This record gives sequence, C-alpha cells and structure tokens, in this order.
Amino acid sequence: MSAADDLSQYLRSRRSEIDAALLAALPTPPSCPASVADAMRYSVTAGGKRLRPILCLASAEAVGGDRRNAMPAACALEFIHTYSLIHDDLPAMDNDTLRRGRPTLHMVAGEGMAILTGDGLLTEAFSLMAREPRGDDPALVARKLRVMSIVAAGAGAAGMVGGQAIDLTCVTRGADGHLAPPLDAEGVRGMHARKTGALIRASATAGAVMGGAADQQIDAIDHAAAELGLAFQIIDDVLDVTGASAELGKTAGKDAAAGKPTYPALYGLETSRRMAADCLDRAAATLRGVGLAESRLLDIGRWIVERSN
Amino acid sequence: MSAADDLSQYLRSRRSEIDAALLAALPTPPSCPASVADAMRYSVTAGGKRLRPILCLASAEAVGGDRRNAMPAACALEFIHTYSLIHDDLPAMDNDTLRRGRPTLHMVAGEGMAILTGDGLLTEAFSLMAREPRGDDPALVARKLRVMSIVAAGAGAAGMVGGQAIDLTCVTRGADGHLAPPLDAEGVRGMHARKTGALIRASATAGAVMGGAADQQIDAIDHAAAELGLAFQIIDDVLDVTGASAELGKTAGKDAAAGKPTYPALYGLETSRRMAADCLDRAAATLRGVGLAESRLLDIGRWIVERSN
Repeated sequence: MSAADDLSQYLRSRRSEIDAALLAALPTPPSCPASVADAMRYSVTAGGKRLRPILCLASAEAVGGDRRNAMPAACALEFIHTYSLIHDDLPAMDNDTLRRGRPTLHMVAGEGMAILTGDGLLTEAFSLMAREPRGDDPALVARKLRVMSIVAAGAGAAGMVGGQAIDLTCVTRGADGHLAPPLDAEGVRGMHARKTGALIRASATAGAVMGGAADQQIDAIDHAAAELGLAFQIIDDVLDVTGASAELGKTAGKDAAAGKPTYPALYGLETSRRMAADCLDRAAATLRGVGLAESRLLDIGRWIVERSN
Repeated sequence: MSAADDLSQYLRSRRSEIDAALLAALPTPPSCPASVADAMRYSVTAGGKRLRPILCLASAEAVGGDRRNAMPAACALEFIHTYSLIHDDLPAMDNDTLRRGRPTLHMVAGEGMAILTGDGLLTEAFSLMAREPRGDDPALVARKLRVMSIVAAGAGAAGMVGGQAIDLTCVTRGADGHLAPPLDAEGVRGMHARKTGALIRASATAGAVMGGAADQQIDAIDHAAAELGLAFQIIDDVLDVTGASAELGKTAGKDAAAGKPTYPALYGLETSRRMAADCLDRAAATLRGVGLAESRLLDIGRWIVERSN
C-alpha cells in the first residue's frame, strides 16, 4: 500500500468516527426545539474535510494518548468551525449561497435561524467540552479546563473572530465611501493567522493536552500547527484562483473578485505554493525536535499542501 | 433607611463593581483588532440593569461565599446576555434600532460587525470563565468546570438559543405564507422558561456553585431562580404594554405589534401581575426551605416584580 493510500484510509477511518460522534453530540428534541436541532444537523452533516477534529485526534495519538479522550474537543472544534461558516456565509458577511455543494443554511432556514443556529453550535461546543469526557479525576478536570481555555482563545476576538473582523474591514467601505488601505504582506499573514490559523492551532494543541502530553510537546505541536494553519490558508487562496467551483463545493474566484487580500495576489501562484511547502518544512523541523516527526501530524500536513479541494 | 433605599444602594454598589470588572475583562488591542474591541465595549457599556451578574454575586454571598470568586462568571453571564441582545436586534431577528436608549450595534457598526461582535462576546464569556479565578486548587478547578457546564446549558439550544428559535418561529411565515399556530399558555411559559429563564437560572446557580454551596442549596437556588426568571419575563411583557419607550430604553408595544405571544395577551394585565407575584412567593418558600429567605436574592426578586423598566 502506498503512503498516500495509507493516509487516505486513515483519514477515512477517522472521518467516519468523527461523523458518528458529531451526530451523537448534537442536541435533539425534546430538550431542544426541532427547528434549531434540524438546522444544526443540516450544517454539521454537510460533510467537509473534518481537518480540525482529525488534527485534534492525531495530536492525541501522536503523544501516546487515547484518542477517545480527545473526541469531545474534536467535535467541539468542528461545531465551532461549522458555526463560523454559517455566520460567514450570511448576506451581511460573505453572502454565499453554496457551501460544500449544498445551499447555505440561511438559504433554506432563513437568516434569523442561521444566526441562532451558529450561536447554538458555538455554545454547544463549550457545553460538550465541559461535560465530556465524564469523570472527576482532578487531572482530567484540569485538562478539560485547559482545553476550553485554548479553544476559546483560538475562536475568540484575539483569534478567529478577530481575523473575520479584519477580513470584513478590508471589504467594507467606510463612511467616506472608500475601502480601507489594502493589507501589506505582514497584514495578510496576521489576518490568516487569526482567521484560520488560530482554530487549527487550537485543534492540534487541544488534542495534545487531552492526550496527556508534556508541556514541551504541547508547545512544539502548537508551533507546528501554526505553520500548518498558514499552509492551509495559502493553499485555500491558491485553490480559490485555480480550483473549479464543483470540486471546491463553494464559489471559486470569489475572494479575488471581492478584492480580498490573498497570497496569490501578493506573491503569485508559484511562490505561494512554495511558501506553503516551506511552512510544512518548518513544522517538520519543530516536530522532529520533540520526537514527533513520525506521527500522523506531518502526513496531515502534506495532505493540506497537496490537496485539490 | 428604608428597605427600598437599602436595596437601591446595594444594587448601585454591585453595579459599579460589575461595570469595572466588565471593562477589565473585555479584550483590547493589540491582542484583538480595534474594530471588534470597540464594538464589544460599545454594547457592554451601554448600561442595563446588570440583573444576571447581580444575581450571580448575590447567590455567592447568600451561601456564605466570597463574591469575588463569582465575578468572572458574573461578567461572562453579562457578556452572553449582551451578545443575545446584539443578535436579537439584527434586521433578520427583531429588527430593533434602539436599545438601552442608544442606537443598536448594527446601526453604528454594520450588520456583519454586529454578528461578529456577538460571536466574540459569547466566546469571550467562556474564555473568561476558563481563565478566572486563577489557581489550580482541584476544588476551584472543578467548580469552574461545573459553572461552565451550567452556563453553556442555560445559553444553548436547550436554553436561551432554543427559546429564541421558538420566538422566531412564532413570527415567521412558513413556505405557505402562514404563521405557525399561536402558542398556548403552556407553550408561552415554555418559551419564556428557555428564552429568559434559563440564563437567569444559570446566573443564580453559577453564583451558588462558585460560592461553595452544598448541592441542596444549589438546587433550591436553581428552583427559586426559575420562578424569578418567569416573573422577570411576565413583567417584561407587562411593561411592553404599559411602559413608555423612553423609560424602557427600547421600543414599547413592539411585541404586541409583532403579534408575539405574551402573558398580557393570554391573561390580561392584572392577572399577569398577580402571576409574577405568585412566582415570587414560590421562590420565597423554596429559599426559606434551605435557610436562605433572608438573603438578598428575595430583595432582588421583589425589585424584579416592582420595577418600571
């Protein structure tokens, strides 16, 4: 079996575990009204790469932990990612009608319900991490609390929400009718680090914490995941230029058309691809330093850089 | 000094502590972009009764705890309440232009930024509860985790978000152009229990947990707060009919105009007021059963029922 086949099988197997856990973690009637339960399920089961939960489980495994202990955080991270897509697709934000090949939630459930469903998923993410894994062993309780802090920081105003705010400011005309000055290279890197990178970092780090890693390994995984997060976003920008809408499951060329700052716009396609590969090299070096070069984390990194959707 | 003066002074003193703690807890640049930091501060400092954080601190004090330990949860609850108002005011929801006597956030910052700011406040709430009070004493860590679970349940799809979804469904026309059948008395009570009651319950219960209460007292406070939450919403419905917009700081008569199910519509004003007073009596009986009848909790309950805004 080739390395690529082996990785495909690994990803398929983890995705199937994650999909089952996500379904089991979603609130259902009668504890929750059917309208919002249906809307949550619509968005969470729309597919997607499951990159964040896979990274979370792979981190836990890489440090020798039991990945079942990381599954609640993995599902919570996918809930948060899904809520961010729902809100990002709204007319007041990116105004997207298609996501993962299906109509976006506000197209089928209305804008108000889409806002509430995003709010619900974000809240359920924290509810899930607080509840599970069950048990009152002080070491477990302390890990759960640490993971909630990591995830909240990655998802909040200093992380993902802050990145979205910068993104929004770039494409919104001010009171004078003008756009803000375009971001320079450092500005784009900072926006990406928050918007996509922060939650990807949190995913890998949360898995390492739940897997019982020592602080040195947790720090190394955090640094390596920051590189993988940047690589992911660079390739996302590249695919927005080169990809077909059907393969992406979303509207291609949209970022460029909106005048959003992207890596290809700044550096061109070839240099952008090379920069993503450089991120992967730096991640590899960091993981090697703590004896984790042979883990699945780097395979996932290669998949991030070589993917076509 | 009369009992009313004494309570006014208590509320003023707690509000001023809470306002200072809220300001200190808000994220600021450079860790967070100025756009979203400014928007968060605009909404959080718009005033308001601070009922939820006051209940949280009062509960901690009632059970003999140090209210400083409950302050992070108190601030988190106000962040969550504020986010719910920001999202509720959006055009796709209640479409309100005035809140607490000031333009709503989407009127000054745009809809996209208002959505993001709400998302940010909700996330910061959990970030704050995970971080503070600082310390790794296992009893404290366990309490923090329990409080996060309580608050997430109150704010989530089975609580506040679920109540908002029911509310939204009541005023949204289906594909056939018709409204859903109006809620009956049990339906309105259930909607109110989720929409307002759940977070008020969580506020009181979180305070009791952080104050170190025994489970019997926590349960009693939870039950009493459910009654206070219902009383609060009944009086809110009454004031929507009888109040002046200026005093309320929001548009009066709006619920009735939207055809929303309310207590006065179901029972008339006088019976509604009596029902709120009955809630207070039941809360008093419950608190008396665990030796908490002399605490501030009941004073706050009386203020809820007798308030005029």
